[in-house]
Amino acid sequence: MTHPLDALFRPRSVAVIGASSDPNKIGGRPLAFLKRAGYRGAIYPVNPSAERVQELAAYPSLAAIAAGVDQAIIALPGKAVLAAVDDCAASGVRAVQVFSAGFGEGGEDGQREQAELRARAAAAGMRVLGPNSLGLFNTADSFFGTFATALDGAWPRPGSVGVATQSGAFGSYFFGLAQARGLGFSHFVATGNECDVDVAECVTFLAQDAATRVIVMAVEGCKDGARLIAALGAARAAAKPVIAMKVGVSQAGARAAATHTGSLAGEDRVFDAVLAEFGVYRAQSLEEIVDVAYCASVAPLPRGTRLAVITTSGGIGVLAADAAEARGLELPPVGAATQAAIAALIPLAGGVNPVDTSAGIIGDLSLYSKAAGAMLADRPYDAVLCFLAHIGRNPAHWAQLRDSLYALRRRHAGLPFIAVLLADTALIGELEAEGFAVFADPTRAVNAIAAASRLGAAPAAAAPPAASRPPRRLAGRPATEADAKEALAALGIDFAPEQRAGSADAAAAAAAALGYPVVMKILSPDIVHKTEAGGVALGLASDTAVRAEYAAMHGRVAARMPAARIEGVIVARQLGGGVEVLVGTQRDPVFGPVVTVGMGGVMTELMDDVTLRRAPVDEDGARAMLEATRVGRLLCGFRGAAAADVGALARLIARTSEIAFDNRDHIAAIDLNPVLARHDGAHALDAVIAFQGDAA
Amino acid sequence: MTHPLDALFRPRSVAVIGASSDPNKIGGRPLAFLKRAGYRGAIYPVNPSAERVQELAAYPSLAAIAAGVDQAIIALPGKAVLAAVDDCAASGVRAVQVFSAGFGEGGEDGQREQAELRARAAAAGMRVLGPNSLGLFNTADSFFGTFATALDGAWPRPGSVGVATQSGAFGSYFFGLAQARGLGFSHFVATGNECDVDVAECVTFLAQDAATRVIVMAVEGCKDGARLIAALGAARAAAKPVIAMKVGVSQAGARAAATHTGSLAGEDRVFDAVLAEFGVYRAQSLEEIVDVAYCASVAPLPRGTRLAVITTSGGIGVLAADAAEARGLELPPVGAATQAAIAALIPLAGGVNPVDTSAGIIGDLSLYSKAAGAMLADRPYDAVLCFLAHIGRNPAHWAQLRDSLYALRRRHAGLPFIAVLLADTALIGELEAEGFAVFADPTRAVNAIAAASRLGAAPAAAAPPAASRPPRRLAGRPATEADAKEALAALGIDFAPEQRAGSADAAAAAAAALGYPVVMKILSPDIVHKTEAGGVALGLASDTAVRAEYAAMHGRVAARMPAARIEGVIVARQLGGGVEVLVGTQRDPVFGPVVTVGMGGVMTELMDDVTLRRAPVDEDGARAMLEATRVGRLLCGFRGAAAADVGALARLIARTSEIAFDNRDHIAAIDLNPVLARHDGAHALDAVIAFQGDAA
Repeated sequence: MTHPLDALFRPRSVAVIGASSDPNKIGGRPLAFLKRAGYRGAIYPVNPSAERVQELAAYPSLAAIAAGVDQAIIALPGKAVLAAVDDCAASGVRAVQVFSAGFGEGGEDGQREQAELRARAAAAGMRVLGPNSLGLFNTADSFFGTFATALDGAWPRPGSVGVATQSGAFGSYFFGLAQARGLGFSHFVATGNECDVDVAECVTFLAQDAATRVIVMAVEGCKDGARLIAALGAARAAAKPVIAMKVGVSQAGARAAATHTGSLAGEDRVFDAVLAEFGVYRAQSLEEIVDVAYCASVAPLPRGTRLAVITTSGGIGVLAADAAEARGLELPPVGAATQAAIAALIPLAGGVNPVDTSAGIIGDLSLYSKAAGAMLADRPYDAVLCFLAHIGRNPAHWAQLRDSLYALRRRHAGLPFIAVLLADTALIGELEAEGFAVFADPTRAVNAIAAASRLGAAPAAAAPPAASRPPRRLAGRPATEADAKEALAALGIDFAPEQRAGSADAAAAAAAALGYPVVMKILSPDIVHKTEAGGVALGLASDTAVRAEYAAMHGRVAARMPAARIEGVIVARQLGGGVEVLVGTQRDPVFGPVVTVGMGGVMTELMDDVTLRRAPVDEDGARAMLEATRVGRLLCGFRGAAAADVGALARLIARTSEIAFDNRDHIAAIDLNPVLARHDGAHALDAVIAFQGDAA
Repeated sequence: MTHPLDALFRPRSVAVIGASSDPNKIGGRPLAFLKRAGYRGAIYPVNPSAERVQELAAYPSLAAIAAGVDQAIIALPGKAVLAAVDDCAASGVRAVQVFSAGFGEGGEDGQREQAELRARAAAAGMRVLGPNSLGLFNTADSFFGTFATALDGAWPRPGSVGVATQSGAFGSYFFGLAQARGLGFSHFVATGNECDVDVAECVTFLAQDAATRVIVMAVEGCKDGARLIAALGAARAAAKPVIAMKVGVSQAGARAAATHTGSLAGEDRVFDAVLAEFGVYRAQSLEEIVDVAYCASVAPLPRGTRLAVITTSGGIGVLAADAAEARGLELPPVGAATQAAIAALIPLAGGVNPVDTSAGIIGDLSLYSKAAGAMLADRPYDAVLCFLAHIGRNPAHWAQLRDSLYALRRRHAGLPFIAVLLADTALIGELEAEGFAVFADPTRAVNAIAAASRLGAAPAAAAPPAASRPPRRLAGRPATEADAKEALAALGIDFAPEQRAGSADAAAAAAAALGYPVVMKILSPDIVHKTEAGGVALGLASDTAVRAEYAAMHGRVAARMPAARIEGVIVARQLGGGVEVLVGTQRDPVFGPVVTVGMGGVMTELMDDVTLRRAPVDEDGARAMLEATRVGRLLCGFRGAAAADVGALARLIARTSEIAFDNRDHIAAIDLNPVLARHDGAHALDAVIAFQGDAA
């Protein structure tokens, strides 16, 4: 199988431009690593002032190499890079790695040089990794084109985890931590400034790579949403779990990220939604990536969330149960018959899940395996956590348990077994060879199981293809709330009955026609946040109140926003009851239009109860979004209220998302807040449409 | 210094009843451990069938020992324990440890035996640890009265961490994890069934113990709130940080806890509030206890939340910044002059905090210390995180950095330095000896710093002593909402204007007197949840509406709750605007009356936005509670609304808490939900009082 990145990841030959005899220098390290790894392709050190470099025949220039060169590694000072790239182009090199720094991350000059580098390589049809890349390695083909100092302390063990990281320092520290934990690697690649190859394209490569079963990706931002979506789709199609990390979430983090790379951290929540769409697990720490990747590579993935816990310590059982429930795992209890059977084996045993064998098994530790076997025979579970305390440190105890435990594990070959115990590395290795994932801390074990169960869950149905529905093109460019409502109503969005009014008399007439109580809102193309401007009044219950408010509101708004053009007010029937929901869309610069659903009204910002998806979503997708929010729980008739028409609300959300998608070339955002979800339908009470190019 | 528990923790002599020659048996292990530890007191094995046990002279009975015996360890089958306790009483033993199981945790017979054990020991003035205790050790006095198998794998290193745990298995696994991490211990005690000595009393002991600087406590529940409060007060008075763990939070966890020990997990949130009151850090996992105890015992505690991060990797810097912000730490940036000074040292360096030295220091790693020194000279920080990647694994690199880093650390002796790097145990030990806390995972390091900063913060002022205020004794035993409001109003609680009405005519008259719009609520001694019963109507704006609703409400309530006695309705002026706040109290069976503040109205359960404190609180305490909730943020005038009268609300909360406290002998709960906080005061709109002995 060939892949566009083969020349990078598994070249048949490699030249090192700037090759050094010192294996501690940036141009010497890849040579030393390639030799140490036993790379079977041709290695060409390029160095005009040496005949041999690290015992290999050296060449004064790339042109002096007679055979074709698949890949060139450029380990030169930044200023010499462009000339070297030209040499590579002239020699028919297919892929270039640029270790040199001082490009996109180093001010305007560097950015200009990086653009030039990219253009020259593209013109020659060469792929580029970097600049400012730490390089890559591929254990299956023994190719080590990197200068990572992390390899000094820890030579990678071959395995099934493929790593694509933007930051080399970040990636290599992760590698060091993971290696210490015993993870086995297929590939590791650091993309650096990403003038051409990015993390997403590497993920696509890993998705089709035979040696890779688990993919780890670490980014600080994403500049090309389509590439990332293609990559995550490829990984999903190949059924390979993806564990992702993205830093730069916090204010201080984003500030640091901005100084660190050229890439925008972007809207973190949109990134999160894209990861969720493709079933990617987003880790919050390096250690968590290590734990989850370890669990997914050592044990099968759980197919669901039902965890069996068997423990020698009641207290640890309770701790594990707490942690499991906090992370969305269930602990289905065993039945009375099984409980009795376990009690017959071990009189001091207790519990239905966790099952606590207690210290009553001391003397015959095979009872532990018998109790676990009874538990697993009772009902289906998706994962098993075996807490074994110090048993592995006492040879006599371990000998009592070992064979029966391994036999049990083999009888349930498809089920992930996670052993939690204190043991030396030899025993941990033995357990891993038997298919146990091994943890010392019970909470970390539970966290990894929960993450693995999310990776192992069948992915949600892909978003439906652009349906055969007619497009919902927006007419014109509505400027006021009233205009926006009319335009959206024409596309199928339902609004509460309302009328415009340009005088107190007209407002009173509108209120009488609509029925009391009414809401009054200021009508102005210049005011988006009407509440803050004093331009919203609720509960007007009489002709007198409406007339008085008309004048009062104009006075307040004029005082707060004297420059705003006022076109009168909107008078709307005040609908009682119901649940206020926010429905909005925005066009993300990286991923395109997204739809947001959450708690509506004044509580939106305060409660932070929102969920996002890429637009469009269909009604099922809209329902799933509602289920992901707290406000969604109110819809089914919370505390005696009538249940809302969730179908109507889901239709409104889906239609809004379609409008955002179909008009993504000019709509920047739609804001329906609140939408009132009632038993008789879903009625938007407010509408704002923002267009691209509008002042923020 | 003497302490009531000295005979347990540091006896001058110890007898082991049931002493065994086999050091793997429960009666043999403590002898082996005492010998190994070099315990300097007298050891008396008691065994009627041996002359010598483990090379020590054995005694046929306790009575045969001529000298006085300070402590006896009972390692006998459960049925022989009571007789042995009688022997101890007869011999003047001061303290007894009971290793034997099968008491309080083993059904009714066992509970009866445990009560008997307790009574006989108390009558003789003997203190008891256990039964079902794993024992204890004390490294300062080399006393190892325990059969913990964890000691086989890891002999404790003396140090400053004292551990008091209820569950022995839980505690010993924690010990194993902590020992692997290099923690040093002063004491370890497992209290088991706690028929006498409990974890709280051990914490009190550790608070006054000279060798102990950091206290770890692990419980599944608490039966004696006063003892725990005294213990936490003693630790606070001694300025010793306490790290606590309590399991049994989740449903499955509580189920497992109930099968595991006799102790009720109780209301977890009340426990949480008590810990918070005393500045205790509550850890969520074993590893987190280890991390926090390690950090607190190796480095000084931070005095605040200002963290300086200096890093060789921008990506790790961003990760640390994200984690710090998520955990409430600040990263104050250095000023422009310092930034310029660092850039002059290291041209590729970036950032203002984190400061990223980048790989530009390779060649002269002392630049790292210079940059860090510039950063620390710029402004005050409370803790320093030094990310050092793999530097410690490269001897040449480490030699460049070492001296300057240690010199910097010594210049800032009072400041905690946390080093994050991959290193072997020798280097970790060296760093610890220089006063660095060492972590491999940056996120865990940040978490430990954040926890330590909370432990290091000056504790909040203790709750004021029972003031000289007159008690707020409740008159009578109000049965309906209207009665409750009258009784509470008499004690200083402000309610919205309202009237009772027993007919549609009376309701209409009341509404006219109060002013429209009005609220109508059903009045019944049998209905607590009026909304669910159909007994609340809002926004009644006319005479017609009030009359119609009167009939409609009676019909609804009669249909839903046919057995309820109906005494008419309450008609109240519907106050507009404002923020709905829940103010409630409940009497916790362990800790007494507590006050709860949170988001009010129908959102209370949904939002889970509540905070608790022991009652009474004063106005300052009430304000602090409001600041701990989301609803508190609404009070200062969210989104253009008028700011609420927070002083009035705080007074209402304080008064309510005083009422709960002053009537704690008969009030079970008070529920004011909602209290409407407006610019003109805080008005309770509803009131329920529940009394002890009421049907739930």
